Amino acid sequence: MKAFVFHGPGKSSWDEVPDPDIEDASDAIVRVDTTTICGTDLHILKGDLPEVTPGRVLGHEAVGEVVEVGDDVRTVRPGDRVLVSCISSCGRCSFCRERRYGQCRGGGGWALGHLVDGTQAEYVRVPYTDLSVYPLSAAVDDKDGVLLSDILPTAYEVGVLNGGVRPGDTVVIVGAGPIGLAAIATARLFSPGRVIVVDLAQSRLEAARALGADAVVNAGEDPQQLVEDLTEGLGADVAIEAVGVPDSFELCTRVVRPGGRVANVGVHGKPADLHLEDLWIKDVTITTGLVDTYSTPVLLRMLTAGRLSTGSLVTHHFDLAQMEEAYEVFAAAAETGALKVVLGGVQHDVVDVPA
Amino acid sequence: MKAFVFHGPGKSSWDEVPDPDIEDASDAIVRVDTTTICGTDLHILKGDLPEVTPGRVLGHEAVGEVVEVGDDVRTVRPGDRVLVSCISSCGRCSFCRERRYGQCRGGGGWALGHLVDGTQAEYVRVPYTDLSVYPLSAAVDDKDGVLLSDILPTAYEVGVLNGGVRPGDTVVIVGAGPIGLAAIATARLFSPGRVIVVDLAQSRLEAARALGADAVVNAGEDPQQLVEDLTEGLGADVAIEAVGVPDSFELCTRVVRPGGRVANVGVHGKPADLHLEDLWIKDVTITTGLVDTYSTPVLLRMLTAGRLSTGSLVTHHFDLAQMEEAYEVFAAAAETGALKVVLGGVQHDVVDVPA
Amino acid sequence: MKAFVFHGPGKSSWDEVPDPDIEDASDAIVRVDTTTICGTDLHILKGDLPEVTPGRVLGHEAVGEVVEVGDDVRTVRPGDRVLVSCISSCGRCSFCRERRYGQCRGGGGWALGHLVDGTQAEYVRVPYTDLSVYPLSAAVDDKDGVLLSDILPTAYEVGVLNGGVRPGDTVVIVGAGPIGLAAIATARLFSPGRVIVVDLAQSRLEAARALGADAVVNAGEDPQQLVEDLTEGLGADVAIEAVGVPDSFELCTRVVRPGGRVANVGVHGKPADLHLEDLWIKDVTITTGLVDTYSTPVLLRMLTAGRLSTGSLVTHHFDLAQMEEAYEVFAAAAETGALKVVLGGVQHDVVDVPA
Amino acid sequence: MKAFVFHGPGKSSWDEVPDPDIEDASDAIVRVDTTTICGTDLHILKGDLPEVTPGRVLGHEAVGEVVEVGDDVRTVRPGDRVLVSCISSCGRCSFCRERRYGQCRGGGGWALGHLVDGTQAEYVRVPYTDLSVYPLSAAVDDKDGVLLSDILPTAYEVGVLNGGVRPGDTVVIVGAGPIGLAAIATARLFSPGRVIVVDLAQSRLEAARALGADAVVNAGEDPQQLVEDLTEGLGADVAIEAVGVPDSFELCTRVVRPGGRVANVGVHGKPADLHLEDLWIKDVTITTGLVDTYSTPVLLRMLTAGRLSTGSLVTHHFDLAQMEEAYEVFAAAAETGALKVVLGGVQHDVVDVPA
Repeated sequence: MKAFVFHGPGKSSWDEVPDPDIEDASDAIVRVDTTTICGTDLHILKGDLPEVTPGRVLGHEAVGEVVEVGDDVRTVRPGDRVLVSCISSCGRCSFCRERRYGQCRGGGGWALGHLVDGTQAEYVRVPYTDLSVYPLSAAVDDKDGVLLSDILPTAYEVGVLNGGVRPGDTVVIVGAGPIGLAAIATARLFSPGRVIVVDLAQSRLEAARALGADAVVNAGEDPQQLVEDLTEGLGADVAIEAVGVPDSFELCTRVVRPGGRVANVGVHGKPADLHLEDLWIKDVTITTGLVDTYSTPVLLRMLTAGRLSTGSLVTHHFDLAQMEEAYEVFAAAAETGALKVVLGGVQHDVVDVPA
Repeated sequence: MKAFVFHGPGKSSWDEVPDPDIEDASDAIVRVDTTTICGTDLHILKGDLPEVTPGRVLGHEAVGEVVEVGDDVRTVRPGDRVLVSCISSCGRCSFCRERRYGQCRGGGGWALGHLVDGTQAEYVRVPYTDLSVYPLSAAVDDKDGVLLSDILPTAYEVGVLNGGVRPGDTVVIVGAGPIGLAAIATARLFSPGRVIVVDLAQSRLEAARALGADAVVNAGEDPQQLVEDLTEGLGADVAIEAVGVPDSFELCTRVVRPGGRVANVGVHGKPADLHLEDLWIKDVTITTGLVDTYSTPVLLRMLTAGRLSTGSLVTHHFDLAQMEEAYEVFAAAAETGALKVVLGGVQHDVVDVPA
Repeated sequence: MKAFVFHGPGKSSWDEVPDPDIEDASDAIVRVDTTTICGTDLHILKGDLPEVTPGRVLGHEAVGEVVEVGDDVRTVRPGDRVLVSCISSCGRCSFCRERRYGQCRGGGGWALGHLVDGTQAEYVRVPYTDLSVYPLSAAVDDKDGVLLSDILPTAYEVGVLNGGVRPGDTVVIVGAGPIGLAAIATARLFSPGRVIVVDLAQSRLEAARALGADAVVNAGEDPQQLVEDLTEGLGADVAIEAVGVPDSFELCTRVVRPGGRVANVGVHGKPADLHLEDLWIKDVTITTGLVDTYSTPVLLRMLTAGRLSTGSLVTHHFDLAQMEEAYEVFAAAAETGALKVVLGGVQHDVVDVPA
Repeated sequence: MKAFVFHGPGKSSWDEVPDPDIEDASDAIVRVDTTTICGTDLHILKGDLPEVTPGRVLGHEAVGEVVEVGDDVRTVRPGDRVLVSCISSCGRCSFCRERRYGQCRGGGGWALGHLVDGTQAEYVRVPYTDLSVYPLSAAVDDKDGVLLSDILPTAYEVGVLNGGVRPGDTVVIVGAGPIGLAAIATARLFSPGRVIVVDLAQSRLEAARALGADAVVNAGEDPQQLVEDLTEGLGADVAIEAVGVPDSFELCTRVVRPGGRVANVGVHGKPADLHLEDLWIKDVTITTGLVDTYSTPVLLRMLTAGRLSTGSLVTHHFDLAQMEEAYEVFAAAAETGALKVVLGGVQHDVVDVPA
């Protein structure tokens, strides 16, 4: 089959590789109809994640069809259209038993496209199938479904639920890339009083508006002052970091009110300063985390019922075979305006692939 | 009357000052029978808290007797023996209404010995009496009662409750000064599986043992390794910072397990490094906060019933008039072994005042 | 002044009575611009609440203007337009300190129109003003504001929050009177997956639809079967009782799923059967409660920002002096279709009073 | 092998039956070293649980040794000494995924000795082994270990955790049989201020005292008055029902304070009256539930570390072959004073089997 293979920092290609086989009774083989590219994939290409070894097929998001299952698979069977989650779960370790599937110590967690071959391929072997794939109703099309593999549950669990968003809250979201936008969409499930979004790119701020942000502000134009002005000097109830750099994290800790919460979603590569000389007295809660996907069934239900708008999250469509081009467009987001780029899914007559 | 007055950085004395008067209908005048000195008082003397102005009477902890009340005071009357809390509460602002009395915007919060004259005096004017003092049963002696003004609720709320200690948990407490020791005593209310205490001073580690620590370790002897050894490499469920320096905070973030909580109690003067490059994926919750004293009624009930051991927390006793000497002993804790030094309370025939 | 006075079971009238005066330093006198009638007022008229004594001015909901305040009132002053809450709070008792203002033991709780003279009058004396009235922005008109005195916080706190409604949940609301309808409006703040409303009156089911119910069913047409059909036999996540009779409570306990919650809001006059022979094994949580109004500031903020729809809740408008006629229309809801009847508020050019 | 077989209401015997075999890849065969009898077993013998069919081997509690495992079992292997939990978990259904293993829809839940053959036998086939058995340290002897199969997690989860016991609380436990006593032992993990135990049998009240009850009261001597006297008329923070009859449940709803919680643990056969005419206004939370055993790992850790006292819970020891005699002693608890009767475990030199 064809697959997108990492060959070491800076090297990758759409190659012919052997088809995957069932290796464990809990495995399934899924034919990938639709996949997408995550910011983390770009980190891997740069060599930031040394645990990803050359030869690895990348990708941890997909919608597809089950073509084969191991003897121990009970919840899906060949022919089922499924969502493949970015997180696998052994279901047995202490972390899985407290629903922290992302921390699975039994060979699950973030495995696909990381520790085992992933979804940017024509076929993928999914471990621990029963806790890692979800049957998908025909009411959900591929391009929406694939957002449930990672960014919607990530934004919801690590941003909105860890942040404890409640009705009436002022929520500041720093970063309007795919994760930040998904945080807007899912924060709205709790009817915040006001969602303020910060980013450097005007196009992303416009996408934020389209998804329901009440106020947007360029990161260069004193967002802290805006938050204070809008909250009578008090600060935000919840601040969600969706970038992954020290400055944006530190901004979150400055805009949050006493008693508020900072939920970090961004993937960071270096330390931030934690200004404990100001914060020790401020009653602040800061959370970090990898997605566990415990919320996937609920989000899937909401999406199926048309109660979760994904609006402008997908900007580009490609064929699977255009993987290398899709990576280029996604990596050059500042120029291309790319948010999520979706590959495959042509059977649904999606909009034109950009030239 | 006599009172301990701050005269600017490095200058303070036990002076004759005017008696306090009722200024607001919610005030009470309390005769101070027993008070104590807090680490924060030392910070004030050094000039670290510029909002404390010369002429201020210090102290925010006391047990005493009500001698006069304003027209609006409904819960105590002259003659009542009371605990004076370090936190006052207006009861009306949005923070007080969500029980964050420490963040009161109506003139309460940490006011005594900070923004208004305090308890290291023969008499103190207490604002917002009804929400700031507690009648004290004869079953609680002065030296235990005065621990409820600040360190017991601080350790319990900001350390143990923010840390979410649960039965069976491994709890690491970094710092075995008065607050760290109070954290041991109050963490035990939730039956942790194991309390591990870290400090540099052998005498404090011994005090930790006496209060119920299961393991103690010198900060210089790789506490992280000990925690890993005791938890099969997993880490602690809860880490409580009770020192107030970057190193001890950073240690807490290293010893905590995925899914665990770091509760900062220490008063910090500079930033710490927050290693988001490790923590972003680790499902960690970090909390900070000033005490609110919402737990004071429960702790008072536990103490009254003999269900909260304060063991070795008080090491020295002085007369009120020995305030300056008491400060010297307390400030030289490394040599004197001082934990809490209690002033007054002689009517209870306490142990000898050290020479 | 004029006021609506209870003269014993079955007897009441719009009478001339003495103007109220400040009695306590925490009191305010409010000129009533708008008030309304609650189902509980009808219970009082029937004699169901013997603690209400003849001579009592009824009513516990109002919007008006402060005309005088006691010496201890700090948060409002004469001239302020305010919302008068149905619950007063002493702010000092153990219940007030845990935000259970409805259970206040210091003379607050549900006092107005119950234990002290109420709001169905030209003027009302409000006790414990600072914790019992809220300044009202001009953006909120009287007829919406008065819904915040009781039914919106009641439905939200006792129904939606006690019921723990979460995104995606199936919520069954039994009873589509004013409280049930307010439960629909406030449940939607949490983006339930599906709201199913049960009532006997077709007009109320239509009002439920207009406020956002996804499915409505006549109580006579096997609502339990409908809930099962819509939830694959599982049952509802949350069932809210908003009637106050045994049958509707028991229906709630039958339609709720294992692990679900029953939130009772209705005012009951007799016991219900609790089928523990079925429920003991079913992981059900049942809650009861009087409103505390801790949520009033949030709901007020949402209403002010136009984020809380009160839609069709108010069906009739009267002048204050038409109090007796308003009671007749409200008491005959089955014929008149009355939900909330609002009195006063004419300065806002509200819709015509029905003939 | 030998096993205790139910032959229909009133009929049962210790019979020769075929040895169990692995039927599913997730099964294990465990040699039963120690088992015990539960009150529910007596209900089955009476015919109260019609889903239990003649021929069924009873028993859902055991400690033993794994002798064979299916291909899909990953966490234990032959030779391991294990605790067999009363609850099995498929790990895949929506209930298992929210940790409500007791409600498992995948063939788990309470299966052993109920829907499949149980543990009162020389060998037992355990379904879904990985989520249903726990390796047992040599530090835990059989008679303590077997209490973790059912009564300790039941009392802890359904009584103490559902009841939300917190430090300082007044806890009333109605019923001092094995479950009520286990509730005392596990409630103490949260340092309640006072545990009051109600029963009719003096011997059980004495056992309650021995396990740490602060006050005991005969059910015939006005326990409600005692609770009021001890709580200044307020009532208990938490009331735990551990009998299973309407009177004791109704007592719980009377002794609980406004804002308190009633946790039902008892197995009920008929409805109770729920006095909503009193309770609607009282802010009460009532919970029911079957044990899920999510707490078993923590309780096991506490027991292994010697931090959970099981004191006087086991009153009688028998050989496995004395099963019929053990049932007689257990069924006649009023005369024999039996609490838990333990069968087997002779390898540990336990105390004498009663004559």
